[in-house]
Amino acid sequence: MIDLRSDTVTRPTEAMRAAMARAEVGDDVYGEDPTVTELQERVAAMFGMEAALFTPTGSMANVLAVAALVRPGQEVLCESRAHIVRAELGAHGALTGITTRTWSHPDGQVDLDAIREMYAPDMGMYFVRTTAVSVENTHNFAGGAVLPIEDLRALRAWATSVGCAVHLDGARIWNAHVATGTPLAEYGAVADTLSVCLSKGLGAPIGSLVAGPAELVEEARVRRKRMGGGMRQVGVLAAAGLHALDHHLDRMAEDHEHARLIAEACGVDPATVPTNIVVVDVPSAPDVVAAAATQGVRIGAVGPQRVRLLTHLDVSRADAEQAAKVLASLLG
Amino acid sequence: MIDLRSDTVTRPTEAMRAAMARAEVGDDVYGEDPTVTELQERVAAMFGMEAALFTPTGSMANVLAVAALVRPGQEVLCESRAHIVRAELGAHGALTGITTRTWSHPDGQVDLDAIREMYAPDMGMYFVRTTAVSVENTHNFAGGAVLPIEDLRALRAWATSVGCAVHLDGARIWNAHVATGTPLAEYGAVADTLSVCLSKGLGAPIGSLVAGPAELVEEARVRRKRMGGGMRQVGVLAAAGLHALDHHLDRMAEDHEHARLIAEACGVDPATVPTNIVVVDVPSAPDVVAAAATQGVRIGAVGPQRVRLLTHLDVSRADAEQAAKVLASLLG
Amino acid sequence: MIDLRSDTVTRPTEAMRAAMARAEVGDDVYGEDPTVTELQERVAAMFGMEAALFTPTGSMANVLAVAALVRPGQEVLCESRAHIVRAELGAHGALTGITTRTWSHPDGQVDLDAIREMYAPDMGMYFVRTTAVSVENTHNFAGGAVLPIEDLRALRAWATSVGCAVHLDGARIWNAHVATGTPLAEYGAVADTLSVCLSKGLGAPIGSLVAGPAELVEEARVRRKRMGGGMRQVGVLAAAGLHALDHHLDRMAEDHEHARLIAEACGVDPATVPTNIVVVDVPSAPDVVAAAATQGVRIGAVGPQRVRLLTHLDVSRADAEQAAKVLASLLG
Amino acid sequence: MIDLRSDTVTRPTEAMRAAMARAEVGDDVYGEDPTVTELQERVAAMFGMEAALFTPTGSMANVLAVAALVRPGQEVLCESRAHIVRAELGAHGALTGITTRTWSHPDGQVDLDAIREMYAPDMGMYFVRTTAVSVENTHNFAGGAVLPIEDLRALRAWATSVGCAVHLDGARIWNAHVATGTPLAEYGAVADTLSVCLSKGLGAPIGSLVAGPAELVEEARVRRKRMGGGMRQVGVLAAAGLHALDHHLDRMAEDHEHARLIAEACGVDPATVPTNIVVVDVPSAPDVVAAAATQGVRIGAVGPQRVRLLTHLDVSRADAEQAAKVLASLLG
Repeated sequence: MIDLRSDTVTRPTEAMRAAMARAEVGDDVYGEDPTVTELQERVAAMFGMEAALFTPTGSMANVLAVAALVRPGQEVLCESRAHIVRAELGAHGALTGITTRTWSHPDGQVDLDAIREMYAPDMGMYFVRTTAVSVENTHNFAGGAVLPIEDLRALRAWATSVGCAVHLDGARIWNAHVATGTPLAEYGAVADTLSVCLSKGLGAPIGSLVAGPAELVEEARVRRKRMGGGMRQVGVLAAAGLHALDHHLDRMAEDHEHARLIAEACGVDPATVPTNIVVVDVPSAPDVVAAAATQGVRIGAVGPQRVRLLTHLDVSRADAEQAAKVLASLLG
Repeated sequence: MIDLRSDTVTRPTEAMRAAMARAEVGDDVYGEDPTVTELQERVAAMFGMEAALFTPTGSMANVLAVAALVRPGQEVLCESRAHIVRAELGAHGALTGITTRTWSHPDGQVDLDAIREMYAPDMGMYFVRTTAVSVENTHNFAGGAVLPIEDLRALRAWATSVGCAVHLDGARIWNAHVATGTPLAEYGAVADTLSVCLSKGLGAPIGSLVAGPAELVEEARVRRKRMGGGMRQVGVLAAAGLHALDHHLDRMAEDHEHARLIAEACGVDPATVPTNIVVVDVPSAPDVVAAAATQGVRIGAVGPQRVRLLTHLDVSRADAEQAAKVLASLLG
Repeated sequence: MIDLRSDTVTRPTEAMRAAMARAEVGDDVYGEDPTVTELQERVAAMFGMEAALFTPTGSMANVLAVAALVRPGQEVLCESRAHIVRAELGAHGALTGITTRTWSHPDGQVDLDAIREMYAPDMGMYFVRTTAVSVENTHNFAGGAVLPIEDLRALRAWATSVGCAVHLDGARIWNAHVATGTPLAEYGAVADTLSVCLSKGLGAPIGSLVAGPAELVEEARVRRKRMGGGMRQVGVLAAAGLHALDHHLDRMAEDHEHARLIAEACGVDPATVPTNIVVVDVPSAPDVVAAAATQGVRIGAVGPQRVRLLTHLDVSRADAEQAAKVLASLLG
Repeated sequence: MIDLRSDTVTRPTEAMRAAMARAEVGDDVYGEDPTVTELQERVAAMFGMEAALFTPTGSMANVLAVAALVRPGQEVLCESRAHIVRAELGAHGALTGITTRTWSHPDGQVDLDAIREMYAPDMGMYFVRTTAVSVENTHNFAGGAVLPIEDLRALRAWATSVGCAVHLDGARIWNAHVATGTPLAEYGAVADTLSVCLSKGLGAPIGSLVAGPAELVEEARVRRKRMGGGMRQVGVLAAAGLHALDHHLDRMAEDHEHARLIAEACGVDPATVPTNIVVVDVPSAPDVVAAAATQGVRIGAVGPQRVRLLTHLDVSRADAEQAAKVLASLLG
């Protein structure tokens, strides 16, 4: 089976497993796991942040970050298909009492005019105040779209001018970095807090991090404990993350090539596929999903007439070519 | 002082006070206040709803209605300046754990294309599902805009076809009714739940109602108690509401005339003032607010360069003319 | 019907209605209702508190007070039958995310040894910290028990010594004051925050207040708005409260006499009935409730084999004697 | 350093690391990780439950279990030092809106009389209803106390008779099982839901499970996702759990012996140390903690004058003897 449903399906490589097996560990609830500490410091440094914190999932990382920036009774603005409002099961409202308003952009981009129009400054105690804007880069449900660093800088400048925070959901910031060559620290420079994921393109089995100012990361640490994310000998997972950063980051360029190759086979203009996600409009998503599966290719429906394919570490060039062949025959 | 800050500032008339003073009352927590029961039944009947429930405020009515339609982990869609996301202090997220996404329309209208695009059907347990759409009529922060009944019917038809509920924030539905002649029951027919307010144009001192199917109203009753809205001899307030429905509904046409008269003086096209709210863009909202106050006219800032004026029961024709004169001199 | 189900069932007197009808009012959301302001200042002064805030119900007053003292992730301790954990529909957890632990005392008293044993000081970020103790005086579900001022002073002294706050649920503090002669200000002196109710023994139709330090009362004001308790021309209700404080406070001694008279008829030792609540153990609560009702006396079940009777403003001496006669015949 | 602060500090053995390194994995969000599935089925079977679910921590397992049994506005009863109210940072209130009342027992035992007295049946919509009782076995903050199976059976019988659920916080149920010989399935039989921990006495680095009826476990799966606990290739952790169940369960008897050995050295009657936790009252907890550390023994303060020591997989017989020597010299 060639599994294109998500880049979360990757299995740890032998080398990664070996790194995990020899990881030095300690009790991370006590802050004593050296491997976690190393990973946290490394990720913080990569993005020019003061501190970072390991979390079991990207959803938790986003919830912790946004909750550190936005109080109950305040709001975060985001694009209408952002992961935080679409795929985190309402946690920001249900668990941390935060309210959201959204702008819509066909490519999931920052729409600074819309943001400015929606932005609610502090107008006294009866209006919901905008405390943060969250952006997602790359944007999952906008087909892995990259947010240009110029747009993020413009957002940052405006946000700073009005006293609003910026959260960057960087679950796939690695893909944006590889696709554009923009240094990770430049992404870090446009955000107050950011989340990154180790278990998507990087291929680690488990883990995300939230990064930001030390004070907010400490607040996230407390909330992580409350949410049930305070794990113990986390070094076994952090070792996979360190290994992934060493070995699986640059190679994502291959995933992007494979995605464009598959896109073309599906009749999608490769120029519209910036990273590792291909979205295809089809007559019937369930039918296409089922037919592809019978031919050894697993893809996912993200709407009644829309399927999504992701390339990743476990999809080789040959796999990509085979998937392209199968999908071309189905959608041609 | 001529107070145009809000239509909530009205004071009960002598006749209304007399009605309150002679109200028959009982303990409404036990469901034994006959005047509340009468008001609830009357409002339910006006809108063709099965049941209605008195609440201390319109905010509580909206929270109870939406929470009866939408579960934590699900979402309600609304226009981006809707009262429920702008002026209820984040209660829908903070108290009832509901998440929101928004579309933006310059006149606060229903944008069915945008709604359809955002709508998230039940796609399994990992996506936030859209369970309701909330519309506000008239739309406060869109300048008292009326939502045409045809648009609401189209929303209703589409929502029914996909299994989505509709909440109507009808705090000022009275103004829409008076401005358009659309029967109240026709507004009721396009919504699963609706809220109405007694203390804005109707001039009662306190009170709103939430109306809908009996089962949802019962659920609202439980949640009202939890939120601290289960009051006792509420008949003293309900009597004001009944009096207002008898005497203050049709006269809102005068408020609308007064609003247009004032709009014209402020350089705003009266054709853009459908009901009792006038929004004026000014160079400096605080300056205009202060200057008007020194001349006996109180208005409110709703943005750094935007003021809002509302006409109501306590603004006579002469008051409106005087306010127009003052504002014309300030803004001319 | 003689209604002994609760002291919340009282109907406003003619004089109270007249006071309400002539109340000077304003928009209290803007802090402009002079009658509310007068009531708030008067109640604050009676208890020696800096400020007070009107709320629609005692439940909301308690939720606002406790939430001002205790953060999510912290706890309040209280007696196990306290109103805040028994009769507020879980609001402290459900709405404000506070956790509770309880001690049990047969008469609802302060058990300082138990409190000390349970008290959790700040032990770092992983333990729930005790931030407040809440006491209820008189204690509703402990049969209107009075908490001696000496016990409250001892609690206060200990709490201060460890940096813990004290909330006093004083819905019926008026009864404690009348029964013991302890000045209200002495009750105020033992608490950081307190709530009082106008619609129980005092006979107002609607309303409670939360009192405390100005800063916490401001926090309560914000949260009141979020909870849907920010009403407008509240002076119509506050006037009833002011009237009640003038005319209905001292007369509660009669209620207490009537309660003892009825207790005796029910075979309950009057010495165990300190205020206006009588609790009687019976073979079958529903049977007794039903039988009493057929003879013109309404009482309430508070357990399968327990009924509760309350005297109040609308129970005259003659009513009390008649109720005693009926109950004696049923329970004798 | 001999680390007696907690049994959570254990590091995975070489054999456990090897098992993790060769684990077969899949994407557990899609339910496709065979090793997780095996562990879940195995644990469910051990306790005679229909289903089980892996969670990152025991705190999350408890939150998910209780939330599946108890709705917002309802309550769970537990002993006053239970982990769920003491050491989960208020999550049950803050995240899932549940309210709690507590009984107190010096040894953390079930006090059925107290429970019966506190139990609140469904009395209509205005009272908080008791929906579950939670018990902890062994009881951490009561010094690893074992709850006798007879007491749990009596609780179960009574709870069933009144329609109340029982949750068993079995983070250390393994210790109870080893100490008493009571089969795990007998513990399962007295509970509707239970949680177990892999990373305490069992020595796995990360992981807990919640077990119960299939329907409730499915509900827990949804809430786990919302709380950020939906991890991907969890098999790497589940493999450690399976290895621990195979190799580290029976050996806990040694931990219990070591605990008694240390207890004796501390002047604590070994007969009062049923499992692997020793609680010692000392003049100054910080002083003792510091002094022990300088001599190579790490212990933890759980109160100003109370320290706690736990034995576990990484404390050998020699370690225990050395710790005993050090502590005897400090406390003798």
